[in-house]
Amino acid sequence: MTDTARALSFLTIDVDAVVANWRRLAALIAPAEAAAVVKADCYGLGVEHIAPALAAAGCNSFFVATVDEGIQLRHLVPGAVIYVLGGPLPGSEPDFAAHRLVPVLNSLAQITGWSSFAKVGSAAPAAALHLDTGMNRLGLEEKELERLVAKPDVLTSIRPILAMSHLACADDAESPKNAEQLALFRRLSAMLPAMPLSLSASGGMFLGRSYRFDMARPGAALYGLNPIPDQPNPMSQVVRLQGKILQVRDVDSPMTVGYGASHRIARRGRIATVATGYADGWFRSLGKRGFGFIEGIKVPVVGRISMDLTTFDVSEIPETLARPGALVELIGPHQSADDVALAAGTIGYEVLTALGRRHHRRWLLGARGGVAE
Amino acid sequence: MTDTARALSFLTIDVDAVVANWRRLAALIAPAEAAAVVKADCYGLGVEHIAPALAAAGCNSFFVATVDEGIQLRHLVPGAVIYVLGGPLPGSEPDFAAHRLVPVLNSLAQITGWSSFAKVGSAAPAAALHLDTGMNRLGLEEKELERLVAKPDVLTSIRPILAMSHLACADDAESPKNAEQLALFRRLSAMLPAMPLSLSASGGMFLGRSYRFDMARPGAALYGLNPIPDQPNPMSQVVRLQGKILQVRDVDSPMTVGYGASHRIARRGRIATVATGYADGWFRSLGKRGFGFIEGIKVPVVGRISMDLTTFDVSEIPETLARPGALVELIGPHQSADDVALAAGTIGYEVLTALGRRHHRRWLLGARGGVAE
Repeated sequence: MTDTARALSFLTIDVDAVVANWRRLAALIAPAEAAAVVKADCYGLGVEHIAPALAAAGCNSFFVATVDEGIQLRHLVPGAVIYVLGGPLPGSEPDFAAHRLVPVLNSLAQITGWSSFAKVGSAAPAAALHLDTGMNRLGLEEKELERLVAKPDVLTSIRPILAMSHLACADDAESPKNAEQLALFRRLSAMLPAMPLSLSASGGMFLGRSYRFDMARPGAALYGLNPIPDQPNPMSQVVRLQGKILQVRDVDSPMTVGYGASHRIARRGRIATVATGYADGWFRSLGKRGFGFIEGIKVPVVGRISMDLTTFDVSEIPETLARPGALVELIGPHQSADDVALAAGTIGYEVLTALGRRHHRRWLLGARGGVAE
Repeated sequence: MTDTARALSFLTIDVDAVVANWRRLAALIAPAEAAAVVKADCYGLGVEHIAPALAAAGCNSFFVATVDEGIQLRHLVPGAVIYVLGGPLPGSEPDFAAHRLVPVLNSLAQITGWSSFAKVGSAAPAAALHLDTGMNRLGLEEKELERLVAKPDVLTSIRPILAMSHLACADDAESPKNAEQLALFRRLSAMLPAMPLSLSASGGMFLGRSYRFDMARPGAALYGLNPIPDQPNPMSQVVRLQGKILQVRDVDSPMTVGYGASHRIARRGRIATVATGYADGWFRSLGKRGFGFIEGIKVPVVGRISMDLTTFDVSEIPETLARPGALVELIGPHQSADDVALAAGTIGYEVLTALGRRHHRRWLLGARGGVAE
């Protein structure tokens, strides 16, 4: 049997849809530049397939979280600008230079380190500056920025090509925090010499023209998550997850299902056991709250999610459809990653990054020649 | 900079502790056999390092979830008996034979398929029978077992070497479900010809002698999770997870931290941003509820968990300890995977299987020659 025939679950990633989403966002914010956030292996979806497709479509700026991600990405998009959001830890500056990675400098310590390194060698690439406007997570505070601009030689030595910040509440257009951060970003960036500015990720791109500056940094929206949760999702869906039915069981007397014996079935029906569990990123919190779809018909999770298995109530499904070997849609046309997140008590981002390694992965690359596995 | 120096988080797996746990459990249940459940990549901890160590210690029977896991394991433990819990889907029987994998037959359909396959070739390995005693997830129901034993030639043809079942409430010694399942397992297995029997996984091994039969199948307890949650954990800890501090920030005026601006800090203090987030399996549900430890001192998570970052309140920690580059213990001597699970609203099993791919992984193999990375 081939690997594909033997597979018990399938994760299909529509790379063309990612590219279409990037093009749509780029058109939305033009003439501002649309970068692409490809950290965490493109939110778990496979940077080795997605980043080259984005580069081929014209994306020239990429953001990753770590140096290791930057080094991997450099091989995939040799000509692109690669920003590393975490910036350099002491001693890692040469790794940035060796792979032409642009550090996002988040603190005076990182700036000092980069400045010293840049002054010694002539090969240091440019840097980006992260100004904190209210996340209080990474980035320069106002008083640190004041100290920086008081030393023009340091500022010059790091060759800043971008000043950026990050919104805390961009998914909520009504939040007053957005306008606060916008005003602070304007004020802080005005303290710097003129350079390209970037404030928004996926959500901020939809907050209006004033949030777009010279570059936006979409991630979630590229992968089909809804950047405007209170409105219909304008993005194309990217992910499909399907699990195979291993066994279907008739229930003809009252019985409990699964761990903890916490789910009792009182009426007659049928239970399908599907070969996907929390070890596959199908969260345990979906127990009794999640759903699947068989040929478009909704089937509720019954009982708890196991490590490798999930049980669904398929009483309403014809036996010819709910049979061993048939596929149950877990993420797809009838249920987005955002929908699954809602049932699981989290956000679509975590649904994507949690997708496990046992799924048989397929990347649809129609525009670039078919399917990769 | 080496990969290790550049790493932003470390996952250390004490393989010797896994082996010690297996030996302890084997001694507990002797003369019954202690198998090892190594499915889902040893609950995410690395089957390629752990399974050979267990085999070298004398473990001869292994359980995996899927055929793919069985094929991988066959190369690691060439001489062991490997059981595949999901059993064969139609057409996959030759894969079992080719790699000497013992299918756990869960349904009459799987039994019929295996019987037909076994009759044709002479190379089919033996099989195990799964009797459902109350999980209602996989396994033969009583009426199916009656139909099977009515056909002695089918039963003979599949060469059963083990009859097993699985407890739903083994982590709760007070649950009446345990005695119910035990009684049913005795009654059902008595319908079969004499063969080795197995009912218990980690939890069931501690329910008393009557639950041990001829073999037990520990998984969670091998990896240091507590098999008796209402008592002190008798197992050795296996996992250590540490994240590196990227930045420490002074808070000198009231401010909010992180996404949603949901956490407000009123008093003076310091916030450390650590390079581990929900993309690394550090669950988003730990936001505002989780903890880390710096040199044994507890530091609470503040604000929401980000994809790549977590912020901790380090106001009580000396600045010399909470500095960029220092490590924060996320799982380890001061906080077990079970403890993290409690804060995250799940179980230790899911904490282990969710551990991400970005951690720099190290396996301690003291008894077998040091450290693997």
